[in-house]
Amino acid sequence: MSDPILSAVQQLRRFPGIGEKTATRLVYWLLRAPKGTAKAMADALLVLADGVCECAMCCNLTAQSPCRLCAQPHRNETLICVVEQPQDVLAFERAGEFRGRYHVLHGSISPLDGITPDQLRIRPLLQRLRDGEVKEVILATNSTVEGDATALYLARLLQPIGLKVTRPAQGVSGGTEIEYTDAVSLARALQNRQVMR
Amino acid sequence: MSDPILSAVQQLRRFPGIGEKTATRLVYWLLRAPKGTAKAMADALLVLADGVCECAMCCNLTAQSPCRLCAQPHRNETLICVVEQPQDVLAFERAGEFRGRYHVLHGSISPLDGITPDQLRIRPLLQRLRDGEVKEVILATNSTVEGDATALYLARLLQPIGLKVTRPAQGVSGGTEIEYTDAVSLARALQNRQVMR
Repeated sequence: MSDPILSAVQQLRRFPGIGEKTATRLVYWLLRAPKGTAKAMADALLVLADGVCECAMCCNLTAQSPCRLCAQPHRNETLICVVEQPQDVLAFERAGEFRGRYHVLHGSISPLDGITPDQLRIRPLLQRLRDGEVKEVILATNSTVEGDATALYLARLLQPIGLKVTRPAQGVSGGTEIEYTDAVSLARALQNRQVMR
Repeated sequence: MSDPILSAVQQLRRFPGIGEKTATRLVYWLLRAPKGTAKAMADALLVLADGVCECAMCCNLTAQSPCRLCAQPHRNETLICVVEQPQDVLAFERAGEFRGRYHVLHGSISPLDGITPDQLRIRPLLQRLRDGEVKEVILATNSTVEGDATALYLARLLQPIGLKVTRPAQGVSGGTEIEYTDAVSLARALQNRQVMR
């Protein structure tokens, strides 16, 4: 029989960024935590394993389709924000600025990793655009080589349909000092400088 | 009904040192991990919740008493290494230097936190020493105010019994540069300097 402490450590260290030392610390914390803590965590993980699917509308991961955000009636139907990952939707929702709809690609085009456009949720996106309500698509893929390539690919695909295709502004991030801003961001911040009013 | 993703995030962020961002990252990683990963983790946590007790000998946390280390027959019965936490036993086992027995106190004396000697596993330690086989006790509590106080308390308790009571050497840690060594460690390294042979 395997040792329950060791096997819990082995399981937790499967998480990215969690090595043996951290996993050990977490397991011993769990052993001293109030009764029921480990059980509550285990239950949440079990539900996670069984109870999550992709939303038929936006392809985000959700417990029920359509997802919570697609089910909200007051959101702007003419505006779709395309993101790479479900986490990106959470980031936008935290920012609280966007009131349109989302679409999750589940990745970005990356030939080196063998990820081609047909592995992303581009077909369901085109399906949504065919309904005709959407007027603008914001391509909010990451500001990386893969994210930029994916945005470019989608722009070439969507512009001929007659849609307004935009990309979020790039520049100095909020709360950052110029001194510590990387060269690419600084160059883009200059190129996209805004007239002060 | 609560969202399974959100509730998994809520559960994982209960871990010390894991905030909402990290918990979110872990949960989305789990959702893309090979099928069965979340279930295997959940199972390990459930066993952890039910299958762990204290060893009747050394008070370490274990699946069965006596624990794996107390059950090993070839270990030196005359030497006990007293540590604060079960993790400390793992650290010593990793070092691979110690071949005696362990005793886990489950904490250190800390009046500010309301932890008094009678809340530690000192009574079971005295019981073990009463058997008479033990000749030396190594007080390997942490090199902190609480750890030092606990070692001092135990030394005063054990020396009258006629036992050899020792404390691990303190000094510059392996692989560290003198320049970056803290003042206390450097002072102790000088006080305990060794003749080179």
